[in-house]
Amino acid sequence: MAVQIQDVARHARVSVTTVSNVLNGRMDRMRLGTLRRVNEAIRVLNYQPNQVARLLKTGRSPLLGLLVPTIANPFFGSLAREIDERAQKLGYRLLLGNTARDSEKERDFLESLMAFGVRGVITTSSIVEQDHYRSFIERGLSIVSFDRKSSPHASLPVDYVSIDNFEAGRAATEHLLAAGHRAIAYVTAPAKTLSRIDRRDGYLAAMKRARLSAEIRVVELRVKTAFGDSDMSEVGRNVANEVAKTNPRPTAIVTMNDMLAIGMIARLHDLGLRVPNDISLVGIDDLYLDPLIRPAISSMRQPLPDIAQAMLERLMARLENPKLPTTELVFKPELIARDSVRTLAPIPSKRVRVGPAKR
Amino acid sequence: MAVQIQDVARHARVSVTTVSNVLNGRMDRMRLGTLRRVNEAIRVLNYQPNQVARLLKTGRSPLLGLLVPTIANPFFGSLAREIDERAQKLGYRLLLGNTARDSEKERDFLESLMAFGVRGVITTSSIVEQDHYRSFIERGLSIVSFDRKSSPHASLPVDYVSIDNFEAGRAATEHLLAAGHRAIAYVTAPAKTLSRIDRRDGYLAAMKRARLSAEIRVVELRVKTAFGDSDMSEVGRNVANEVAKTNPRPTAIVTMNDMLAIGMIARLHDLGLRVPNDISLVGIDDLYLDPLIRPAISSMRQPLPDIAQAMLERLMARLENPKLPTTELVFKPELIARDSVRTLAPIPSKRVRVGPAKR
Repeated sequence: MAVQIQDVARHARVSVTTVSNVLNGRMDRMRLGTLRRVNEAIRVLNYQPNQVARLLKTGRSPLLGLLVPTIANPFFGSLAREIDERAQKLGYRLLLGNTARDSEKERDFLESLMAFGVRGVITTSSIVEQDHYRSFIERGLSIVSFDRKSSPHASLPVDYVSIDNFEAGRAATEHLLAAGHRAIAYVTAPAKTLSRIDRRDGYLAAMKRARLSAEIRVVELRVKTAFGDSDMSEVGRNVANEVAKTNPRPTAIVTMNDMLAIGMIARLHDLGLRVPNDISLVGIDDLYLDPLIRPAISSMRQPLPDIAQAMLERLMARLENPKLPTTELVFKPELIARDSVRTLAPIPSKRVRVGPAKR
Repeated sequence: MAVQIQDVARHARVSVTTVSNVLNGRMDRMRLGTLRRVNEAIRVLNYQPNQVARLLKTGRSPLLGLLVPTIANPFFGSLAREIDERAQKLGYRLLLGNTARDSEKERDFLESLMAFGVRGVITTSSIVEQDHYRSFIERGLSIVSFDRKSSPHASLPVDYVSIDNFEAGRAATEHLLAAGHRAIAYVTAPAKTLSRIDRRDGYLAAMKRARLSAEIRVVELRVKTAFGDSDMSEVGRNVANEVAKTNPRPTAIVTMNDMLAIGMIARLHDLGLRVPNDISLVGIDDLYLDPLIRPAISSMRQPLPDIAQAMLERLMARLENPKLPTTELVFKPELIARDSVRTLAPIPSKRVRVGPAKR
């Protein structure tokens, strides 16, 4: 039988209230000797205060899982902080897993979570294939998935929260069109996530609507670094090398995300190409780093506090009632115009010369 | 009595091996109907696979706690990723807590961890006052503390892992002295952590040894933002405003950390002061962002993979044997010279004119 708080009190020769005071940190007026005896009793009896016992009884846990591609990426760092802040207020703690968008690692992590009694998970990796979630959901796991929508062909009982990634790609492109750009390229890492596909498609739609030809550059990483710390910026550096050699060069670029833009700006600078004078640039995400780069990066904002709030609300609702119909919550990205876009002078329309010019 | 794997097998009308295969993800050759029945049985019987039961039996948990000031800060994001990667290999998962260097929040988080059966914690906040750890240690928690040394006046049974922060401040200053700078200032946020105090003292020692007068600027935040995302860079922006107005200006600056340097470079740029031409700058931390800023920031490197490895090794050893004598592991920071320091022309020594100059 599990050790009770009464056993601890008896062993330490104090009242149950005193033990409770220690457990709850109310120790200001306590004598050091008393505190020591209580702590000693807790240790000797191997007393587990509430949650573990509650865990076995209810099969629920005040833990939530958070899967991120890599917490070293400042976007996921910021998002994780927003989620943690709100989870704490709800009495939950976060179990963090860096999964490098690897479905095998995701599966391992979800397996651990199940074993810990965790019943709620937020996943932010947005990988295309989510079939490995199905078995966990059948075993009682509630999942909220960030940064993608449901697949039309494989519907899972999962709630989706994201920005409208198509709109992000579209509006970023429209912003450049409005500034007079016509030769606009789109730069992306290989589209292994739905959000990346949607962003690219938004660009394509805007270019098509403007009757302009699209130019998409998919850049693979040459050197694979520790996933995520600098991978995206490395992609940006590679594409800057390519773009610098192109003739004629695009006058403007939409980047799949801001880390890519940051790497690109740095390398273009080294190659003597100035942003925005020689080449304009719009990113997506609105990292807190964007205003710290020179030029400060114009970007499409993801409303992280709202996103974090919505994900936790969905997760709480689903933990309460796993039979709830699934939802898809899509936030509108907002253009944050800074200094990385140059407005081109309007091109004068050609005039037909009717007669010989007068002298 | 707790549900056993045998109960699940019976309920699903399969063998125990089949249930075990599902629990361990070996499902490739399994019929979908079988998988569904097993998952259904697990859910209906509310079966908790291994860890929760093991938790109650052993009082140990395959969870480790990780306290960070804020995971949105790229330094702690990178460190957390390094720790998670290694913890996973050891079979541990990380419970993450953002504590904003607030000892009350730290206490709450540690209390949760104890309740979850967690017995090992890495804390990275490095706050001066660590007395709130004592009670948890007496109750059986093992703690490894990053980024500070032990206090001479209050010794806790805690292992300490850090870089030599004094040396970081000293070597950064020496690097500027070697480049010919004499008017070197030190910029810091209020020194509420031991690492900040040590870095500053290293600067002071180097200046004293060179018989130069020190200039320390302690910058408070005017506007308090969400802790950590951009606080440090905001400090950097504020100090850039101050320094620009100073006359004569220091020719070089050591910043307490790199996020502060990043904010400073951005604002100096806006004020028309170029780094390194008008002012040189050395940071501390060596963020993965440093090579992406223009100019790329010269900085003192913290060897994060080695630090993560050392912390986990200490923690594992202490979990094995809590009576181990405590250790203090100090890594040497390494100067990574990039583009933010200008070498000044050597000042010619004055010559005494002996006679009137010949015409």
